[in-house]
Amino acid sequence: MDLNFIKKLVKKSNTKIVLLMLDGIGGLPRESDNKTELEASCTPNLDGLASCGVCGLHTPVGTGITPGSGPGHLGVFGYDPTKYQVGRGVLAALGIGFDLKENDVAARGNFCTIGDQGKVTDRRAGRISTEKNNELCELLEKIEIPGVEIHVKTVKEHRFLLVLRGDGLSGNLYDTDPQEIGVAPLKPKGFTTKEDRTVIIVNDFIQQAKKILANSHPANMILLRGFSQKPDCPSYEESFGLKSAAIATYPMYRGLARLLGMKLLETGTTIQDEFATLEKNWNDFDFFFIHIKPTDSSGEDGDFDRKVKVIEEVDKEIPGLLALKPDVVIVTGDHSTPAKMKKHSWHPVPTIIWSELCRPDNVKSFGERACISGGLGPRIPAVDLIPLALANAQRLEKFGA
Amino acid sequence: MDLNFIKKLVKKSNTKIVLLMLDGIGGLPRESDNKTELEASCTPNLDGLASCGVCGLHTPVGTGITPGSGPGHLGVFGYDPTKYQVGRGVLAALGIGFDLKENDVAARGNFCTIGDQGKVTDRRAGRISTEKNNELCELLEKIEIPGVEIHVKTVKEHRFLLVLRGDGLSGNLYDTDPQEIGVAPLKPKGFTTKEDRTVIIVNDFIQQAKKILANSHPANMILLRGFSQKPDCPSYEESFGLKSAAIATYPMYRGLARLLGMKLLETGTTIQDEFATLEKNWNDFDFFFIHIKPTDSSGEDGDFDRKVKVIEEVDKEIPGLLALKPDVVIVTGDHSTPAKMKKHSWHPVPTIIWSELCRPDNVKSFGERACISGGLGPRIPAVDLIPLALANAQRLEKFGA
Repeated sequence: MDLNFIKKLVKKSNTKIVLLMLDGIGGLPRESDNKTELEASCTPNLDGLASCGVCGLHTPVGTGITPGSGPGHLGVFGYDPTKYQVGRGVLAALGIGFDLKENDVAARGNFCTIGDQGKVTDRRAGRISTEKNNELCELLEKIEIPGVEIHVKTVKEHRFLLVLRGDGLSGNLYDTDPQEIGVAPLKPKGFTTKEDRTVIIVNDFIQQAKKILANSHPANMILLRGFSQKPDCPSYEESFGLKSAAIATYPMYRGLARLLGMKLLETGTTIQDEFATLEKNWNDFDFFFIHIKPTDSSGEDGDFDRKVKVIEEVDKEIPGLLALKPDVVIVTGDHSTPAKMKKHSWHPVPTIIWSELCRPDNVKSFGERACISGGLGPRIPAVDLIPLALANAQRLEKFGA
Repeated sequence: MDLNFIKKLVKKSNTKIVLLMLDGIGGLPRESDNKTELEASCTPNLDGLASCGVCGLHTPVGTGITPGSGPGHLGVFGYDPTKYQVGRGVLAALGIGFDLKENDVAARGNFCTIGDQGKVTDRRAGRISTEKNNELCELLEKIEIPGVEIHVKTVKEHRFLLVLRGDGLSGNLYDTDPQEIGVAPLKPKGFTTKEDRTVIIVNDFIQQAKKILANSHPANMILLRGFSQKPDCPSYEESFGLKSAAIATYPMYRGLARLLGMKLLETGTTIQDEFATLEKNWNDFDFFFIHIKPTDSSGEDGDFDRKVKVIEEVDKEIPGLLALKPDVVIVTGDHSTPAKMKKHSWHPVPTIIWSELCRPDNVKSFGERACISGGLGPRIPAVDLIPLALANAQRLEKFGA
């Protein structure tokens, strides 16, 4: 359902919802025993939740679509990821914990190498060191353009973040990165003439940067892409009436949560730390988003066994979670990351919704094949999960008399 | 599919469709044996229908949305309930069998108590008796406003129906009921200036009512809400080419059926009476809507065992229904009313579509968990059921060459 439709039905309650997001949880079977990572894991507690809850698999964006972290999370958070788009520049800012303001324009930058005729010879400047990147960013941040505040921050190796802050700027610009070598960087260009002023400013920045970097071969030029501004997402409080908190160790996920107005809780680096943070803050919020990163990282590394271990580690925390007496628990992921593929995939994501009021199905274990026959079905849209959780938490009014 | 899309494919036939609507049929498991009301019922005949038919669970409005009776019915009838909204005033009119005309504006009224400073002290006037309500409605119905015909009818206790009949009136007014005590009733106000004339008329009515009621403490004032007009629904004949009849014992459901141009058949008060009415009128219609109320009332009362008995009573009527040789039978409900919750809920609604031409699945019994693995899936939108029934009745042309 549309966010505005849901919003009108939201009512206050003192029930609590926990969204346990196992990043990249979905997988594919390994050859040895034809089991996926989740199926191969020993997860008595998640299986218990699955038995008492209602299960299924969600489609983060659309059938066959592999989501990035931004759309994957937004979908599960209840925001249509095709409507609320998080640009690459904004994602880069979130990823390094940069505090992006309302009208800031962010772009992902690459240091690159250009030859004598100004043509790109290496789009990544030989992957310069992060230290070198740091030095160069400090130089570029000194660039002055009237009416604009300029931030240039190191991401990693050849990658940096550019943020322009000022009135009337627009993110509707094409990339200057030609995405190939042997051609010159593209000139900045707006989608329409409304972007003319921003185009002039970006062009000025690039020209000044080119001069500053002239003697820094191989990093003697920059390429910009993913110009974007923060999407105009209504907050969790506005959309769902939820006072919400995020427990996440990585800046990007903390940034995504902040986009929706979630309070970022301080936590440690381990899974145990995250659940300890949940317990400590239990009384102060209606909704908790707990982000577990290593399910995804192990999948990206193609490390089936490590992914299994991470899942089993999470499983051990479930009794402690239930001891807090949450009203609704959602266990799912933002997308699949099969170890077999070493990257994000389009496969539907196993999901449990557990509450006193959910209608249990016959699913007895938490796994891809088991979830197919669950009450949520094998293809529930990700955006439907939060409305369903709100219903289970008795936080939605009846529609119509 | 969109109603207009279906409409273009409709063709005539002499096949007959029966929609058996078990109001609030869906339930939740009880503790003793983990069975829902439907699962706990002994229903050899419904199980037989399920075995030969195609099963599933429908979503009346949207995932997580608990429908009122209006949206629940409209959805199953094939009309998008988010598009065709039945306001509270209209529903009140339907509920007492008031014959609402095309442009009438209806509102739900409460007799209330106001104190010396005009502030509401009791929104329900101490729940005055229905007899007292009757007396007061007769007084209010004498109010005269030029160019408007005024109807004031008793609903029950403190509740009444106000209908304004006249040219150019609008239902787009805010409630005057502040929904809290200690504040004055709100002044009538339109959504836009287009409602100015209606606002003046409503205000005039309220002022006159206030004078008339001045000495009727505790019922010394009125509050109005849910101003609305009949939704502009195309009839069943127009939408689906079906000459249709409704068999229902309660005024509200008869009213909903009349909204769609169904012929209201006279019937008795029992389930047996309703099926007898079906048999008696069998030759005269293409489509029959049979509404069974006690599945919902027993659920609302939290009476699991009574709900089971009602279901079993309906089951006994199935052989008689099949003996009439219907072409298509739909068995479903407008929403779930789990005895555990004593109210409507968001849970998907068990459904059978039975015909000679349906493609059977492996479902062998009619129950929530059994239906999950049915051919209709666990989340089919309610509005898809009638098009599917039309297809099974061979009443839809092929789309495209």
